[in-house]
Amino acid sequence: MGEDYCAFAEELAAAAGRVALEYFRRPLKVDDKAAGVPGKEFDPVTEADRAAERLMREMIAARYPDHGIAGEEFADTNAGAELVWVLDPIDGTKSFLSGFPLWGTLIGLMERGRPVLGLMSQPFTGEIFVGWGGKARYRGPAGARDLKTRACGDLAAALLTTTSPQLIEDASDQARYRALEEKVRLARYGGDCYGYCMLADGQIDLVAETGLKLHDIAALIPIIEGAGGVISDWQGGTPNKGGRILASGCPSLHEAALEILNS
Amino acid sequence: MGEDYCAFAEELAAAAGRVALEYFRRPLKVDDKAAGVPGKEFDPVTEADRAAERLMREMIAARYPDHGIAGEEFADTNAGAELVWVLDPIDGTKSFLSGFPLWGTLIGLMERGRPVLGLMSQPFTGEIFVGWGGKARYRGPAGARDLKTRACGDLAAALLTTTSPQLIEDASDQARYRALEEKVRLARYGGDCYGYCMLADGQIDLVAETGLKLHDIAALIPIIEGAGGVISDWQGGTPNKGGRILASGCPSLHEAALEILNS
Repeated sequence: MGEDYCAFAEELAAAAGRVALEYFRRPLKVDDKAAGVPGKEFDPVTEADRAAERLMREMIAARYPDHGIAGEEFADTNAGAELVWVLDPIDGTKSFLSGFPLWGTLIGLMERGRPVLGLMSQPFTGEIFVGWGGKARYRGPAGARDLKTRACGDLAAALLTTTSPQLIEDASDQARYRALEEKVRLARYGGDCYGYCMLADGQIDLVAETGLKLHDIAALIPIIEGAGGVISDWQGGTPNKGGRILASGCPSLHEAALEILNS
Repeated sequence: MGEDYCAFAEELAAAAGRVALEYFRRPLKVDDKAAGVPGKEFDPVTEADRAAERLMREMIAARYPDHGIAGEEFADTNAGAELVWVLDPIDGTKSFLSGFPLWGTLIGLMERGRPVLGLMSQPFTGEIFVGWGGKARYRGPAGARDLKTRACGDLAAALLTTTSPQLIEDASDQARYRALEEKVRLARYGGDCYGYCMLADGQIDLVAETGLKLHDIAALIPIIEGAGGVISDWQGGTPNKGGRILASGCPSLHEAALEILNS
């Protein structure tokens, strides 16, 4: 049954990717969720986002009418179901709007509140990252392989990404993040879901972010854990609800980073 | 003759791309140019950078022995020549190290100090951006087309990119950049050469950076100007030596941004 779900998630991603690419690098109608909210970061929502989510919802309703659906753009459906699909058709709308191929379609499957399957698809580069059953796989232009986080050194050797330090709204969180940034070797901005996937692929060591919604993170948890990484909130608790998230390539680095984020 | 140079620049890019992809997303030996310099941003140099530049230098010396070469990694050759190739084998080494496909091989050709041909190649996505003779062209997975900046609105509607605000070392420059950032609709970090190319493609409206070297910018000038954009230093003077660079999709937006950067 699990492999059926994986294959179906790939079908969803392929359909969403076709829709998204019709809009990528073309003029867009852009709504501004944060319009008129002083101090609020610009949060674009695209036509592509809605069209892709609508299509995925139709496909799920047709194939698994009993399953629930939680998406970014529309109200939850059958939220109390044992199995709930969690959809973010375009994670990284700023990247999308800027023409950068770092956005992705996120598809997660939660079983009683726990993410058991996760997929990230970047249709422009033709890359897909899938976590399921304690493993994680990559497929891209050069072929397929397992995903494996890399052996970590200490914080001083670590590569850190965050989508943007300006997205960290709380001043105390901002200070904690900056303290972490000062300890690492290199911090890179502008990642969204792509950063987590590069962590799963052993390219980077840490991702630290705040304010994540369920649909931003649910799909990434099985990918990171399946690749041997660790993901939690900033207190070391479950990441399954989003919020302040820390992902690391290995347990010892995770502990060291949590200590900075809580000191 | 111009088309010969364009074809040759593409040969150089293809060769450099093959070398770079051998190293991309694989374990690297990383030198740290800034090691031990307090307060200095980490500036990685990869084996790939050196191997790709060495290969391009050999190809240029064999084909155009009278031309000069200015590269990132090795000493200038024949710097007083009428025609000088300017090479940055991997612009965006942080992206490269993080596994993000936003780095590029930059190849410029300067005629008596003026950039007349520029090329950016991203071999993982299979994209190439070329400026020559007042035009700019794109070729990618979905085909080839002319590059054209988009019609700009005012600053309040503009999308801005910068590689990282932390790369702006001078406090006064930092304040000027922040003032510009406050005026625009959306700022995105983490671009390197890819940001300038997305400006040429009409996806974004402004790029503002400081501390650029000749090899960081020479290849991008013909691409931006060929696409209808404007590029200068922060005073509106020539961008041909690097330093503090502003690129814009159209002249009126450029003027508006220069005013902020100089107020």
